[in-house]
Amino acid sequence: MELKSIKELLSSDQLLQEVGVKGWIRTFRSNRFIALNDGSTIHNIQCVVDYENFPENVLKQLNTGAAVSIVGTLVESQGRGQSVEIQVKEIEILGIANPEEFPIQPKKHSLEFLREKAHLRIRTNTFGAIMRVRSALSFAVHNYFREHGFNYVNTPIITGSDAEGAGEMFRVTTLDAKNPPLNDQKEVDYKEDFFGKETNLTVSGQLEGEAYAMALGKIYTFGPTFRAENSNTSRHLAEFWMIEPEVAFLDLDGNMDLAEDFIKNVLSYVLEHCSDDLNFLEGRLLEEEKSKPQAERSEMKLIEKLRFVTENNFKRVSYTEAIDILKNSKPNKKKKFNYIIEEWGADLQSEHERYLVEKHFKAPVILFDYPADIKAFYMRQNEDGKTVRAMDILFPGIGEIVGGSQREERYEVLKDKVKAMGIDEKELWWYMDLRKFGTATHSGFGLGFERLVLFTTGMSNIRDVIPFPRTPQNAEF
Amino acid sequence: MELKSIKELLSSDQLLQEVGVKGWIRTFRSNRFIALNDGSTIHNIQCVVDYENFPENVLKQLNTGAAVSIVGTLVESQGRGQSVEIQVKEIEILGIANPEEFPIQPKKHSLEFLREKAHLRIRTNTFGAIMRVRSALSFAVHNYFREHGFNYVNTPIITGSDAEGAGEMFRVTTLDAKNPPLNDQKEVDYKEDFFGKETNLTVSGQLEGEAYAMALGKIYTFGPTFRAENSNTSRHLAEFWMIEPEVAFLDLDGNMDLAEDFIKNVLSYVLEHCSDDLNFLEGRLLEEEKSKPQAERSEMKLIEKLRFVTENNFKRVSYTEAIDILKNSKPNKKKKFNYIIEEWGADLQSEHERYLVEKHFKAPVILFDYPADIKAFYMRQNEDGKTVRAMDILFPGIGEIVGGSQREERYEVLKDKVKAMGIDEKELWWYMDLRKFGTATHSGFGLGFERLVLFTTGMSNIRDVIPFPRTPQNAEF
Repeated sequence: MELKSIKELLSSDQLLQEVGVKGWIRTFRSNRFIALNDGSTIHNIQCVVDYENFPENVLKQLNTGAAVSIVGTLVESQGRGQSVEIQVKEIEILGIANPEEFPIQPKKHSLEFLREKAHLRIRTNTFGAIMRVRSALSFAVHNYFREHGFNYVNTPIITGSDAEGAGEMFRVTTLDAKNPPLNDQKEVDYKEDFFGKETNLTVSGQLEGEAYAMALGKIYTFGPTFRAENSNTSRHLAEFWMIEPEVAFLDLDGNMDLAEDFIKNVLSYVLEHCSDDLNFLEGRLLEEEKSKPQAERSEMKLIEKLRFVTENNFKRVSYTEAIDILKNSKPNKKKKFNYIIEEWGADLQSEHERYLVEKHFKAPVILFDYPADIKAFYMRQNEDGKTVRAMDILFPGIGEIVGGSQREERYEVLKDKVKAMGIDEKELWWYMDLRKFGTATHSGFGLGFERLVLFTTGMSNIRDVIPFPRTPQNAEF
Repeated sequence: MELKSIKELLSSDQLLQEVGVKGWIRTFRSNRFIALNDGSTIHNIQCVVDYENFPENVLKQLNTGAAVSIVGTLVESQGRGQSVEIQVKEIEILGIANPEEFPIQPKKHSLEFLREKAHLRIRTNTFGAIMRVRSALSFAVHNYFREHGFNYVNTPIITGSDAEGAGEMFRVTTLDAKNPPLNDQKEVDYKEDFFGKETNLTVSGQLEGEAYAMALGKIYTFGPTFRAENSNTSRHLAEFWMIEPEVAFLDLDGNMDLAEDFIKNVLSYVLEHCSDDLNFLEGRLLEEEKSKPQAERSEMKLIEKLRFVTENNFKRVSYTEAIDILKNSKPNKKKKFNYIIEEWGADLQSEHERYLVEKHFKAPVILFDYPADIKAFYMRQNEDGKTVRAMDILFPGIGEIVGGSQREERYEVLKDKVKAMGIDEKELWWYMDLRKFGTATHSGFGLGFERLVLFTTGMSNIRDVIPFPRTPQNAEF
């Protein structure tokens, strides 16, 4: 007898046949009804036990969390909420779960409590749903790019280049931690280190991605990136996954088109393929928000919100326009912002981004043409001499979800910029080469994958959308 | 006019239409024929320039490596080897490539030379083909697992657990390298480090993967893993990508079935989708092998070899049988092996694996039921008390491509094993929990992705199948 997944069984029409199923008990009630889950779907299959036919010691072990193997007959369900159920003939206890010890009992656990049990929280409905949606989103990413002629590139995780400039880095080393070798200048002698130089964990695969785009045309990365920043917020992780497409012969307008199309496409994929999990997550969110004041609740339900993004154009607004809107906004005039917008050139804070997205436009917003001074060295200078071809995509409840730009393709301009920013050009020799040999307009962006999962699942803490979160003071598991 | 990729144009039937194309010049010969490539395919499109209609200074810049934008008419090709070509009307030079400086000239470059130019080697036919095949293989991996009901899980890269035991690790730290803080015992005080403990780069996502399999049922990881081993061989990298599926309720036989089906499936995918690149790589390999003595040449051509794997069963052989075969083999009796096989229990060396695969069976081989003493603590003990339910898959020319096992699911047995191996059980508290709560038979394996790419592309050095290789003394780019 072939073992079937619960997902298959629940949509099966093989009634009255004998079936075998293995899974974990979610609940066992009235000494009769096992709700069994095997992770293939959020739904449990109901297994009806005629308790008179089973020994007491077996029934006693049918506790939440126990693994069992069940053989029985698939029949139309008598109860509500499921189409089929199993009339149990045989039960084998594979692994018990002592109810005095197993922490995931059928009651409400706080997300904070579950974070301490990251190895077991995946056995709850909430985390099962989140992680299945996360997996589906990942696949949608690969599928979108493959269908659009992109090649997947694995850029290095350990990098000897410290010119990426996107933030604080983690050092990677095999030197003796206590007594590192020193050189003649009494400095740590990285020549003795594994790679013969100082190395760090990457903050972005963009620069290497550009090298590949300038040969393969369209590429993307999708891998882990790192920030050694002491940020204990609900939106930051020290280790997170980033998606970075890079396209030759593409300008900023094309880049915005790509990012918008990409996001809509992957959200459409999960709307189509994860409706059960999304329905559950929508219900969870409604429940959670009941305890909040009306003003803080979401205006749209989860699925409605996702549909809204897939069906409406993102608003494209230049930084200059955005500053005008913000300067004339109520919270700015009434000095409700923590940072008052006084003049062009100001760096936008989260409160300003949220105002634009959630209050003013009530839609995802693409801001573009930022002041050069607040953006990275590799972004293409506009003719005005003061702005660069950067773009950020801002999402309701999330803030920045995408940051991208057209890249500076002109050798001399880039060289001057690198110098002006005090970066060692020699470190970037190979990146400069891309401008020396067959340079061309090209663009790309980075999308923080966990922020996308956060948005899609309606969760509010980024630690809850990655299996084993890494944050300051926390690398458990 | 929409920009089309060269791949699209070459299979287009829109003859006599005006088309636009952008790419990099591979060659320009007879002041007339541009071979243009944009990375979308290994094939170039021929662009025919009527040189009398273009100024001398434009023609002079049509050098190998230059980026150009071309507009012209798509016509049936006059020459051999291509179906269509472009009669050029307009040429715009986007980026020059000074032939005195651009290192990738149309002549034979050694692979060693190209490794020094990892940012530019992707502009050669060989590396374009390799990296497109690599990308297709990646997609095939995700596609296979998605179709078979697996969820993709991102296990942590930075790990605080040092019990994985698969090899030397890289330390990840933000402590001052020269003067780290010391505790009362005058040891480095990792409490002051970013994560409040000593952390390393992961050598495997298996243990965390098991936690997810014991809830979602079927999962896989596909991410970077690290070994700080000073191995300068053609088969080892310090940073490489690994695929690790893990399945609840699966025993070792099922695990072997899964691994074999998986490998056959992803190879079939590239045979179907990458025929142009594989044809090129097959030709390259034939060319390369011409300089080798007959005995060292491959017995099969590249594509024939891939087909052989997809169409034939892998040989399944127990370790005990393998030892018998090896003991009685010619090279063992004639003492040609460096390590003579004398008795059961010996660890197999690469020379033995190659003998089994390449001489004896002439097929991929799955060895299983290894002596417990030479395998990891988490592998399930057989009833004989001396072997464990481990399996390795050995491939011709590559050696071990997969290592896997059924996992020890019994709490007490695992506890004893951990103790006997001198591992700190407290480090593994959460892993032991998986055996305490709802434990069940489960299995999984790890496949080194670069070894798969090596096999598929017919390359012989692993540094040539990853974009920017990391090896001892080398973290350039």
